[in-house]
Amino acid sequence: MAVQNLTISLMPNERVDDLQCDGLKIIQNKDMFCFGMDAVLLANFVKLKNHAKYMDLGTGTGVIPLLLAGKCNGASFEDVSLTALEVQEPCAAMAARSVELNGLSEKVSILHGDIKEVFENFKKASFDIVTCNPPYISGGKGLDNPSAPKNIARHEILVTLKDVVAAAAHLLKDGGSFYMVHKPFRLPEIFAEMRDHGLEPKTMRLVQPFKDKEPNMVLVEAVKGGGAFLKILPTLNVYDTPGVYTKEILTIYGETGV
Amino acid sequence: MAVQNLTISLMPNERVDDLQCDGLKIIQNKDMFCFGMDAVLLANFVKLKNHAKYMDLGTGTGVIPLLLAGKCNGASFEDVSLTALEVQEPCAAMAARSVELNGLSEKVSILHGDIKEVFENFKKASFDIVTCNPPYISGGKGLDNPSAPKNIARHEILVTLKDVVAAAAHLLKDGGSFYMVHKPFRLPEIFAEMRDHGLEPKTMRLVQPFKDKEPNMVLVEAVKGGGAFLKILPTLNVYDTPGVYTKEILTIYGETGV
Repeated sequence: MAVQNLTISLMPNERVDDLQCDGLKIIQNKDMFCFGMDAVLLANFVKLKNHAKYMDLGTGTGVIPLLLAGKCNGASFEDVSLTALEVQEPCAAMAARSVELNGLSEKVSILHGDIKEVFENFKKASFDIVTCNPPYISGGKGLDNPSAPKNIARHEILVTLKDVVAAAAHLLKDGGSFYMVHKPFRLPEIFAEMRDHGLEPKTMRLVQPFKDKEPNMVLVEAVKGGGAFLKILPTLNVYDTPGVYTKEILTIYGETGV
Repeated sequence: MAVQNLTISLMPNERVDDLQCDGLKIIQNKDMFCFGMDAVLLANFVKLKNHAKYMDLGTGTGVIPLLLAGKCNGASFEDVSLTALEVQEPCAAMAARSVELNGLSEKVSILHGDIKEVFENFKKASFDIVTCNPPYISGGKGLDNPSAPKNIARHEILVTLKDVVAAAAHLLKDGGSFYMVHKPFRLPEIFAEMRDHGLEPKTMRLVQPFKDKEPNMVLVEAVKGGGAFLKILPTLNVYDTPGVYTKEILTIYGETGV
């Protein structure tokens, strides 16, 4: 049961949003990086496992472990532990306060740390499921302020696709699943990095804004040590008409409420 | 202008179908392998070029070079030559008669030959566009009759994905395009083979029977020596409701008429 801890204090520019999933709330700061539909779709794409250890790489606001905790709770899964790593300290601290706010401190641990250092900081093959909503854009050249939290979240300034995949491969047990959302234009590179690291793409789904518009997101599940066979799910359309969500998006949002 | 040559003789079990594209006709034999929607969608996926040399690998009935010749003619493209290779001699002979039937012998050459021997039989970098609708299924184990024309067309008995991609890479000029239709479940392998052979996936489209059904075809264009950036087109749905084609399929079929 989610318990609202009234002692959690908010920083300037922070607000509390209702995740409408198992009563969850989340703290966000518009000056940092607010989560988007990609994070919600990624959390929804994960096949939940009972008695499992989850890791979210580059968790930002912590939205993915919060949603996964809510979904596991909704499915009455027990013995589930969620760890999440965030390199930006103020962001990690905010996510940790969201965990506290929801009374989930026993289940969800937010750690301040670098994805590139998981090799030293975490035992090999110690997780069942790894998730990541990484920066999508190669490099950070030409950015006015590459250290701005939004730029770090969106551009490969501190971490690259290769770093993320290598970290997931290190953390996962054999047969464990890595779930990632990314930009479709990088799909060949995504598959190549995954296979180079022993992660076989097993499930994929394109997300497009309208039925006749090019996809702007791709969801991929890769299994450590899996055999070659990719199941591609029907393309997910977000809107039927401008401003009107499709039935499937309404169902997903009905569950998560975001 | 297509000229019907009335001296073309038909073999037992052969019939003449109307391609309804630039007045084209095609000879098919139900005991061999009749072309499917995949070939029509592949021909439609090709970005036509003027003053270009086209090669179709494993042409079967010759439907792809016939449709491409019809489309080039429709677009008033000149100086276009189409070559097509088919390993099954009776099939190659039938395709050659279809070419004659359409009065296209000056533009389209059907050759009897093996995709695996293009390295000896064709000069490197001698084509602008290579197309292929290859066998989709790995190996031919367990087949009652692996030498049956239908099995050779559907299973990787005589040629594998790797062979086809290697042949395309040999034949194409730098900047030339390889267009292939295949099964979605082999997408990671397709991308890997292409990149291993210097062909960068640049355009891709999933085809699914209905908007909520998993895709059963994928169209891929790879460019020799291209930079990494994949444009994914909106998923193409074949039917709106059972038996009722979507508007886009009707448009494609309206052009090709098949």
